[in-house]
Amino acid sequence: MALIFNMTLMKLTVAQLNYHIGNFSGNKDKICKAIEKAKTAGSDLIVFSELCIPGYPPLDLLDRIEFIEQCNKTVLEIAGECTGITAIVGSPTLNKRAEGKKLFNSALVLSEGKIIFSANKALLPTYDIFDEYRYFEPEKQFSVFLFKGLKLAITICEDLWDEQPFDNEFEKTRLYTVSPMEELIKQDPDIIINIAASPFSYTKIEAKENIFISKATKYKIPVISVNQTGGQTELIFDGASILVNEKGKVFNQLPFFEEAIETYSFESIKSGSIKNETKSDPVPLIHKALVTGLGDYFTKSGIKNSIIGLSGGIDSALCLCLAVDALGNDNVRALLMPSRYSSDHSVKDAVALAVSLGVRYDIINIEKPFKAFEEDLSTVFRGKERDVTEENIQARIRAILLMAISNKYGCIVLNTSNKSEAAVGYGTLYGDMAGGLSVIGDVYKTDVYRLAAYINRDSEIIPENIIKKLPSAELRPDQFDTDSLPDYNLLDSILYQYIELQKPASRIIMEGSDKDTVLKVIRMIDFNEYKRYQAPPVLRISSKAFGAGRRMPLVARY
Amino acid sequence: MALIFNMTLMKLTVAQLNYHIGNFSGNKDKICKAIEKAKTAGSDLIVFSELCIPGYPPLDLLDRIEFIEQCNKTVLEIAGECTGITAIVGSPTLNKRAEGKKLFNSALVLSEGKIIFSANKALLPTYDIFDEYRYFEPEKQFSVFLFKGLKLAITICEDLWDEQPFDNEFEKTRLYTVSPMEELIKQDPDIIINIAASPFSYTKIEAKENIFISKATKYKIPVISVNQTGGQTELIFDGASILVNEKGKVFNQLPFFEEAIETYSFESIKSGSIKNETKSDPVPLIHKALVTGLGDYFTKSGIKNSIIGLSGGIDSALCLCLAVDALGNDNVRALLMPSRYSSDHSVKDAVALAVSLGVRYDIINIEKPFKAFEEDLSTVFRGKERDVTEENIQARIRAILLMAISNKYGCIVLNTSNKSEAAVGYGTLYGDMAGGLSVIGDVYKTDVYRLAAYINRDSEIIPENIIKKLPSAELRPDQFDTDSLPDYNLLDSILYQYIELQKPASRIIMEGSDKDTVLKVIRMIDFNEYKRYQAPPVLRISSKAFGAGRRMPLVARY
Repeated sequence: MALIFNMTLMKLTVAQLNYHIGNFSGNKDKICKAIEKAKTAGSDLIVFSELCIPGYPPLDLLDRIEFIEQCNKTVLEIAGECTGITAIVGSPTLNKRAEGKKLFNSALVLSEGKIIFSANKALLPTYDIFDEYRYFEPEKQFSVFLFKGLKLAITICEDLWDEQPFDNEFEKTRLYTVSPMEELIKQDPDIIINIAASPFSYTKIEAKENIFISKATKYKIPVISVNQTGGQTELIFDGASILVNEKGKVFNQLPFFEEAIETYSFESIKSGSIKNETKSDPVPLIHKALVTGLGDYFTKSGIKNSIIGLSGGIDSALCLCLAVDALGNDNVRALLMPSRYSSDHSVKDAVALAVSLGVRYDIINIEKPFKAFEEDLSTVFRGKERDVTEENIQARIRAILLMAISNKYGCIVLNTSNKSEAAVGYGTLYGDMAGGLSVIGDVYKTDVYRLAAYINRDSEIIPENIIKKLPSAELRPDQFDTDSLPDYNLLDSILYQYIELQKPASRIIMEGSDKDTVLKVIRMIDFNEYKRYQAPPVLRISSKAFGAGRRMPLVARY
Repeated sequence: MALIFNMTLMKLTVAQLNYHIGNFSGNKDKICKAIEKAKTAGSDLIVFSELCIPGYPPLDLLDRIEFIEQCNKTVLEIAGECTGITAIVGSPTLNKRAEGKKLFNSALVLSEGKIIFSANKALLPTYDIFDEYRYFEPEKQFSVFLFKGLKLAITICEDLWDEQPFDNEFEKTRLYTVSPMEELIKQDPDIIINIAASPFSYTKIEAKENIFISKATKYKIPVISVNQTGGQTELIFDGASILVNEKGKVFNQLPFFEEAIETYSFESIKSGSIKNETKSDPVPLIHKALVTGLGDYFTKSGIKNSIIGLSGGIDSALCLCLAVDALGNDNVRALLMPSRYSSDHSVKDAVALAVSLGVRYDIINIEKPFKAFEEDLSTVFRGKERDVTEENIQARIRAILLMAISNKYGCIVLNTSNKSEAAVGYGTLYGDMAGGLSVIGDVYKTDVYRLAAYINRDSEIIPENIIKKLPSAELRPDQFDTDSLPDYNLLDSILYQYIELQKPASRIIMEGSDKDTVLKVIRMIDFNEYKRYQAPPVLRISSKAFGAGRRMPLVARY
């Protein structure tokens, strides 16, 4: 009887928060406030996300003994706040066994000043942007935690992902030789708690939900997965913590990209269902992801102001809108840098946008330094034709101007290159590839248009002329992107198959794309690894962004 | 009797080669030529290094099914050349089990057109620059290979490193819960074969030797470890393949940073000793490492020419000497870019060096573009003091000039920043931090002087004045490095403790360094992660270089 009594009365709080890596006092304050709130709501158990104590991913800070000591200290301080309530937090803990990696990635159960139970992560994602086996020993033993008559199967993120779909068909769906839930189910748990740190990818929204639904369905017990939210350099965690009932129906889902603290009765989670089923268009989510990632990059760096080179083209226009959404128009300034090759509409359109967004803008024509460079290089370049060199000089002069204002006024230059350009190397290193953060470097050009249309959904924020004009770098007379690149629809389709799906060229061709175009595009991608090596961090919204999740040798011949 | 007969007669060839990642036909040709040479020498068995088929490290090329198919195809072609001889090569192979990572990192024994045995790597280094668990499933079963009456324990690199010292005392010396040799020894092997891909680090020379010596001593059988040589982007493999006899004495060691193919009788390896014991000064090895890494970056990129900005300081002077050694003076050009702040000796010393090395040089004064920028920015900067902004503009003008010549003449800009500067952020992003490859970005300033002295060991190649002058960026009047930084001896000592040894600040201070200086230096290191994120690849000579082996969050507060 006691068991049923408790199960009915028990209340559980899900705390979906935005942590700051290494900011122990900040993270602790957030966690303690959530505990207070849960106490007020009469909650028995509050669940936080994976590695919430240091923030995720702490990367090589985990190699520092003093960092781990700080984690331990913070955990115990939080345990002291757990009076009359129990909390589950994520933290690295020392592996006290003689052999193996020095740390575990742990879920710690805290109550009345103490750690009363711990579960360690068994499945350590080590692919794409994940490097967990770099730091952690995989756990091989599993036990449920008995809490007020309920058996909790406490798992950590990937622990539930023993079967998962990959975009690259070459990967195995069963990536691990162990299944934590197959072990835990032998102990007859009543509920699966999953503490997670799972970054957003617009192609994975449904797949992620399905992981939790499939476990609830298979084991006929509810699943509660608590994710963190917010940007951590390039990664954007979507929150979207999910509660699935014992029938495999979604009971509720917390908002995307927002903090949320919600309390439910165990009974309602077990069999209820309150989520409105709406299949989501990814574009608004991508928009919210980018605004979140951009905003948090500034907040967590402690820097308020940004500057964008505004060309009159759609990429920089989109970035300006995102920056204004994330930082407020007072914290964004634009610099227009026309040249002898700029068309009249470039400046006009850029000014119109800046004015409509209420953003301060300056105009500096780059002719003077461009001429100075031309004169200075004339001897060294004697007898040589004009070529891409002179185009790059213009792009680099613009970077100098942006960086100068950045240095003088303490603002971060936002990079406005898109993923299609970055892929084929259609950009100048130390020129338009410069910046502290790449805002749309994981957004294909065709999706840039979709985002612009979304921004203009109610009113014309981005002038129609910016959206309609043919894309051009304006680095020589009458230049258009299509002079060097295939049509963006075709280009993006090839890029997606090669980069995200990792299909061989032969298969992309077999499935219908033009052979010469495919081979040319792939050559451009491979050849330009060296440029991307030095690119700024890219806000990641896809399953395969350029940056830490994609590691290619530079001097390979392949 | 048969067994003893074979053991006495058996001959074994060690092939220490320089592979090119993804260049299957090139690697195959090299391997086949070595097989021919071994046949001529009457060898029974030839041993190549880890992942010699694709070259090491292939990184995310391993995620491509067609890359693995190409590996398989090449292996079988090589097996066809193994007539009357057996070869051990390293290649990725498919994991045909239902679960786990899709690949194994394998040693394959080839004979008469077939793969007759395979051993898979069990210990997968996943720390520093290594990411092997990203791709490979660890093997859990072990068996010796019976070859002409001899039992071979075939292991792959880290398989012998179940106990190892780490620079960071926080790491466990027993990093793995399995010891392949403890399993294999139960089958009573006669010899340990180890195929390796182990990059150079000047602090690890002895530790590496000791790993093999300790295994031979412990198991009382000889150890043969075959390493690759040559540069792979930032990594420089030293070769130095080693043969240790059954008494734990080094029988022989192949040269550092050179290809070598040597044949020995098993009997001589077993009990002989021909190595001259000379404890090596690391400086000549670092010199050879850098020349190797630099040269291979160009060879493997298919680019011949380089350009260096020559300031008259010691860093660029050292880089010029290394480039001339690696590429030949015809393939190196220098650009001198004095400013209104340059001292007379800067140009004079730089010219003297270029002349003495027979390197083409040009001089372009940066005053004209500098003035143009000052004028163009005067409105935006009205009322603001001069500060680091104007210094950065000069550094960035120089990058534009170097990149312009690079673009026009198809040469790679060599970056000349040293590790001390890179650590504390004493450099300009897109300015002196630009370049295709950082030559001395893993060399502390105090070691820059040691390398310069080594270059001048027989005659004054680098003018003494360059070595003796006080380090200065010359970006404002009478500027010296010591205005902003501690003395380099002190700075480098703190940097080494914090970066390589990963000691906490508190311990560095406790052990005798000045508290304020330590805290200031560490703040500078941490603050400048964002700059290093966009730095070129750095030739790695230490146990902890900036780049892929050191992964820090950018927006952490710690």
